[in-house]
Amino acid sequence: MAKQHKFLLDESQMPTRWYNIVPDLPSPPPPPLHPGTHQPVGPDDLAPLFPEDLILQEVSTERYIEIPEEVQDIYRLWRPSPLYRAHNLERALGTPAHIYYKYEGVSPAGSHKPNTSVPQAYYNAKSGVSKLTTETGAGQWGTALAFACALFGLECEVWQVGASYDSKPSRRTVIETFGGSVHRSPSELTEIGRKILGDLPDHPGSLGIAISEAVEVAGQDEKIHYALGSVLNHVLLHQTVIGEEAILQLEMAGEQPDVIVGCTGGGSNFAGLAFPFLREKLAGRMSPTIRAVEPASCPSLTRGTYAYDFGDTGGFTPLMKMHTLGHDFVPDPIHAGGLRYHGMSPLISHVYELGLMEAIAVPQTECFAAALQFARSEGIVPAPEPTHALAACIREALAAKEAGDERVILTALCGHGHFDMAAYDAYLGGRMVDEELTDQRFAEPLTRLPQIG
Amino acid sequence: MAKQHKFLLDESQMPTRWYNIVPDLPSPPPPPLHPGTHQPVGPDDLAPLFPEDLILQEVSTERYIEIPEEVQDIYRLWRPSPLYRAHNLERALGTPAHIYYKYEGVSPAGSHKPNTSVPQAYYNAKSGVSKLTTETGAGQWGTALAFACALFGLECEVWQVGASYDSKPSRRTVIETFGGSVHRSPSELTEIGRKILGDLPDHPGSLGIAISEAVEVAGQDEKIHYALGSVLNHVLLHQTVIGEEAILQLEMAGEQPDVIVGCTGGGSNFAGLAFPFLREKLAGRMSPTIRAVEPASCPSLTRGTYAYDFGDTGGFTPLMKMHTLGHDFVPDPIHAGGLRYHGMSPLISHVYELGLMEAIAVPQTECFAAALQFARSEGIVPAPEPTHALAACIREALAAKEAGDERVILTALCGHGHFDMAAYDAYLGGRMVDEELTDQRFAEPLTRLPQIG
Repeated sequence: MAKQHKFLLDESQMPTRWYNIVPDLPSPPPPPLHPGTHQPVGPDDLAPLFPEDLILQEVSTERYIEIPEEVQDIYRLWRPSPLYRAHNLERALGTPAHIYYKYEGVSPAGSHKPNTSVPQAYYNAKSGVSKLTTETGAGQWGTALAFACALFGLECEVWQVGASYDSKPSRRTVIETFGGSVHRSPSELTEIGRKILGDLPDHPGSLGIAISEAVEVAGQDEKIHYALGSVLNHVLLHQTVIGEEAILQLEMAGEQPDVIVGCTGGGSNFAGLAFPFLREKLAGRMSPTIRAVEPASCPSLTRGTYAYDFGDTGGFTPLMKMHTLGHDFVPDPIHAGGLRYHGMSPLISHVYELGLMEAIAVPQTECFAAALQFARSEGIVPAPEPTHALAACIREALAAKEAGDERVILTALCGHGHFDMAAYDAYLGGRMVDEELTDQRFAEPLTRLPQIG
Repeated sequence: MAKQHKFLLDESQMPTRWYNIVPDLPSPPPPPLHPGTHQPVGPDDLAPLFPEDLILQEVSTERYIEIPEEVQDIYRLWRPSPLYRAHNLERALGTPAHIYYKYEGVSPAGSHKPNTSVPQAYYNAKSGVSKLTTETGAGQWGTALAFACALFGLECEVWQVGASYDSKPSRRTVIETFGGSVHRSPSELTEIGRKILGDLPDHPGSLGIAISEAVEVAGQDEKIHYALGSVLNHVLLHQTVIGEEAILQLEMAGEQPDVIVGCTGGGSNFAGLAFPFLREKLAGRMSPTIRAVEPASCPSLTRGTYAYDFGDTGGFTPLMKMHTLGHDFVPDPIHAGGLRYHGMSPLISHVYELGLMEAIAVPQTECFAAALQFARSEGIVPAPEPTHALAACIREALAAKEAGDERVILTALCGHGHFDMAAYDAYLGGRMVDEELTDQRFAEPLTRLPQIG
């Protein structure tokens, strides 16, 4: 019988609500704190940056939240996204494991990011703002927000991490193609940017700095709001369409997952895949091992501290309890720009502390070796971020081969690497090296964390 | 009721045979001629370059040819490809027309090219060769062949048109990621390359030159064959899966096409979409207008001569009767590298001479304006080649608006533009200009055509 490679859902099977894991957890996550008073933040504190609908989602304890029709209509441009069985990769590895990957690279931005940029733009447009500001690292998020803003008639202004801005001009052009404008961060347009450039004119930038710049500009005008591409509860919420679809698609394939692996930067792709399965696990309907995979050079879960810290370098955001390497941590310039964030989503950090998931860190040369094997067998060139998930998949599939068992492995291939070919060129040309990691490098942040209570 | 954006087929509905239009035409196309004797070429003349299975397909008069199971299995990685209804674009244009596009950018190479690279690699591997050589312009074909060769264990050596090699380093890296090797053409590796570089060391290259180089190397070793990405009958044959699926998908949508528009370089994308519909038209089952769209700077159908000419610059290939601008025509460096070919597929040329289709030429700034409007409404950034088809779609949709009729327009979006962002940057930055076209420019080739019989 012919092997089936793809498991496709009809548009009518697309999820019509997002899943909020908070009410299903044994305890609620610690609240964010005001950076000045160190008291829990209320909706009013967030109102200068976000519309009311998103603030309500951020603090919601409802299990399900309806996806507006207008958002569903845009989702249907690419959703439901395909689930693939990696038959060719399995054969290349000689493994009895069944490898499935949910592919989000079919979206307009080429990643999972439009799952949240579209509702964010929708709610903001509905609230009457005229412009959104944001940061972008690898460029996936800036692209996704520019696309969503084009659809809802909003301006979009993006601060792109300097190193990425310089090395990836194509990504800037994509954002402009979708109608957005792009600044190199740090920029002369903000106080924090000017301060950092004053100290170090060649500063390569960081996500923390770019966030500070976008937040600073949004805070100055009530017609301007800010949008974040990961970390926050409402962002993770929007991404749960990934896992909800994957549950239906694995059912079509007649399988249940034994192991779920996902790459983590801020955590939205991982949560989007894993949380609906975690719901099933908490309800006793399935029992997968759930494992986050982070870059060895920016290992917030595996080597960070669980503590209150700022989300940005400038200290403008609320304090969030999360696994952090310190808000002024500047990661080595590895190629997975989307994973170079000093912290981890507070909700994922909480789930990790509850012992409901595992985490590992993988060095980048192993990731790119996995990516090449994947591209040559499955045909998709992955973004640097999900190469981490693929490396972990391959480790698991080889363990299954060793053990001789048919375990079912599920991952999310959260985007394609078409704008990241310089990283592949470095790997193919033997110019990519793994990071030198010392405990000292990760102990330092402890001394820089804000002192709470 | 929710609008449906995508029309998806199951893997079980994927075509299992290719459609050959030759037996359905009122007269057969003129045969290719041997470049020395000017007599019709026989299978033996083609044997140094192609495996027997492909030679038989090239001259076949069977209406249908079975797709081998091994090829179907690889096709299923991305086929059936989606058909989209462009609701958002229709709304942006305010047109009552229904616009459908068949999207081939979901393939591993990001274009329609793997539809033929996979069977070509399969038949070559089966015949015992160990390496394929080829040319590539924009890079889509080189990528597609490298991917197919990786799957069937063949080496792949690609000569990339110099101008494209210099301006698109990412494309070279993709080919290498799939395991292929890439040379800048003209190269020092071939006699023709050395001769051209001797005359003009900075030569920007052309598809005709790159073909000559790849053919020269393939002709020197019986373990090496040559693969072509368009123009020939067997290549057009393999692409008919596009149109066959689109027929089923328009049925799902409950529609019949009034107008079919497709971009043409060598013609394989256009034929792949149009020929199955032309079969239906010839049989009286539907009556669409079928229209090819070519770049104003390389207008072989609309301003070329219908005559016997070489397929390459060096004059190594058989003489083919086709619409040609002359085999040493070097097109202006427009950005649609995949359309910069001096000739047109002999089979399409014949169909055009029979009056079964129309052709128009569109300047590139109109194409990129169309591409921007498309990207901002539909979310896909098109390759420069299909921007021509989109410009023609928009012309047709605006004509429908003028006429107030709901005509159904179908096109093929044959690939994404992720590796062509420099062209978008030029357009967005106001640095893209349209070509100065004089009749003299297109009259010249007549004097350079080989004299036949």
